[in-house]
Amino acid sequence: MSTKAADAAGRPQGRRIAVLAGRGDYPVRVAGAAVAQGASVYVAVLTGAGDPADYAAYDAREYRLGQLGRFLDEIKRRQIDEIVMVGALPRPSFGSLAPELSTLKYLPHFARAFQGGDDHLLRGVVSFFEGQGLRVVGPVDLAPDLVAPVGALGRHKPAAVAREAIATGFNLLAVLSPFDIGQAAIIADHRVVAVEAAEGTDAMIERVAGLVQAGRLKPGKGDGVLVKAPKLGQDLRVDMPAIGPETVARAAAAGLAGIAVKAGSVLIGDRERLATLADASGLFIEGVA
Amino acid sequence: MSTKAADAAGRPQGRRIAVLAGRGDYPVRVAGAAVAQGASVYVAVLTGAGDPADYAAYDAREYRLGQLGRFLDEIKRRQIDEIVMVGALPRPSFGSLAPELSTLKYLPHFARAFQGGDDHLLRGVVSFFEGQGLRVVGPVDLAPDLVAPVGALGRHKPAAVAREAIATGFNLLAVLSPFDIGQAAIIADHRVVAVEAAEGTDAMIERVAGLVQAGRLKPGKGDGVLVKAPKLGQDLRVDMPAIGPETVARAAAAGLAGIAVKAGSVLIGDRERLATLADASGLFIEGVA
Repeated sequence: MSTKAADAAGRPQGRRIAVLAGRGDYPVRVAGAAVAQGASVYVAVLTGAGDPADYAAYDAREYRLGQLGRFLDEIKRRQIDEIVMVGALPRPSFGSLAPELSTLKYLPHFARAFQGGDDHLLRGVVSFFEGQGLRVVGPVDLAPDLVAPVGALGRHKPAAVAREAIATGFNLLAVLSPFDIGQAAIIADHRVVAVEAAEGTDAMIERVAGLVQAGRLKPGKGDGVLVKAPKLGQDLRVDMPAIGPETVARAAAAGLAGIAVKAGSVLIGDRERLATLADASGLFIEGVA
Repeated sequence: MSTKAADAAGRPQGRRIAVLAGRGDYPVRVAGAAVAQGASVYVAVLTGAGDPADYAAYDAREYRLGQLGRFLDEIKRRQIDEIVMVGALPRPSFGSLAPELSTLKYLPHFARAFQGGDDHLLRGVVSFFEGQGLRVVGPVDLAPDLVAPVGALGRHKPAAVAREAIATGFNLLAVLSPFDIGQAAIIADHRVVAVEAAEGTDAMIERVAGLVQAGRLKPGKGDGVLVKAPKLGQDLRVDMPAIGPETVARAAAAGLAGIAVKAGSVLIGDRERLATLADASGLFIEGVA
């Protein structure tokens, strides 16, 4: 048995992975991690989300969502059998897809997927790619150091009042899961002060900052926690919650004591950088097992 | 047996009720309803919330929260044995009470009550007045026509998609109750788009209006529902959810199809006026049994 460049059917050896790249630097890091592991990587940069300039070193091409058919033809031609979707993508409207001719035949599948929450839409996307014979892998399968570890990320640790808030927060997120919402909430002053739904985590933190500024909320010292976790049953291959430097800055501006995330299930990007930022802002970032 | 002006102990006959009046016209209406029922009414207008001018026709006096002791002395002097608290009151901070000497002895009770959510604070207030020998009655006991009846209030009725959203919304509010939040939520486009916590219902509706304006939400025709209900176990004597003309105007501005409230448990004020407004705005207001 020797390592071969191709198998008996003449198929190239080694993983062949398509990276569907949305906004941010996660797709760049995931593509880099995959290449570092010896995989052959093809990057599809999504128009309006990813920046093609970030992928100058890669085999990459820009696609609109409406060019799905063209994308599929290309990855079949390249005998790619794995796909990873990573990076933020604004929820598109079905009407804005502007499908090319090669994409039209796939529309009925997506018409249904759009009739529901984000979970439903993503399940539809996953089942679509699986139906095309692709294996959908998660970014963390390729780059495990992108997620929050267990314990404090930086120097600060949650006080007792914050630990209580964290427990309440995770319980709350759990009951919200069946409603396809609840990736984040803020607990302060011994009560739930904000729940995220369609507005997103950033807007929710800003709302709390506004309540604090208006004197309607007065978190005590060591109090005020942003909790963030995936929804129960959320498919972490395609939909991971994430925090980053902006989250830390916003949480600090809102007067929160820290951020608690579900360890192993929330993207944190560059953990050294985030720990440094948290330390400088006086915030804890706690990965809860 | 004849009607007497006083009982054997020389106590005056007829109900003697103190109205603790917060913001809005509910306290005015409740005071009026109590007087119409032959009760003797004493109105305590809360500084910064109620307007003493609204009570020119009543036996009324303005009180700061820190004048609780003075208020209690007065109602004991008047042999008042029932109290109704009605009208919006911004959640005070314990530190802002500025208690008078006669109030200081009651502070320990309230120090604990302030350590928690609104429910907890209100339970503390109720238990305080009950401990003082007063019967706490609800505004609806005195003025039952202030709450939403079962069925459509105006001409418009919820379509099938809205009925589904209403069911989802009430289920959501029920699971949020143990967390002392969840008086209101908005369901649109087949998903939960906003959950109320500390920001209040008006701010939540405005947030959804903003998402619609930004194109991040596109409720279909007949879709988009504000649901509002008391929390499970909420003490309706002292804490009833309410909708009013502004709620209807905001819901219309957010592009919602209507408002669903728990019948018998949500204040609607002048129902003729609200029905007329709903009709003019094309919205339904549905009381759900």
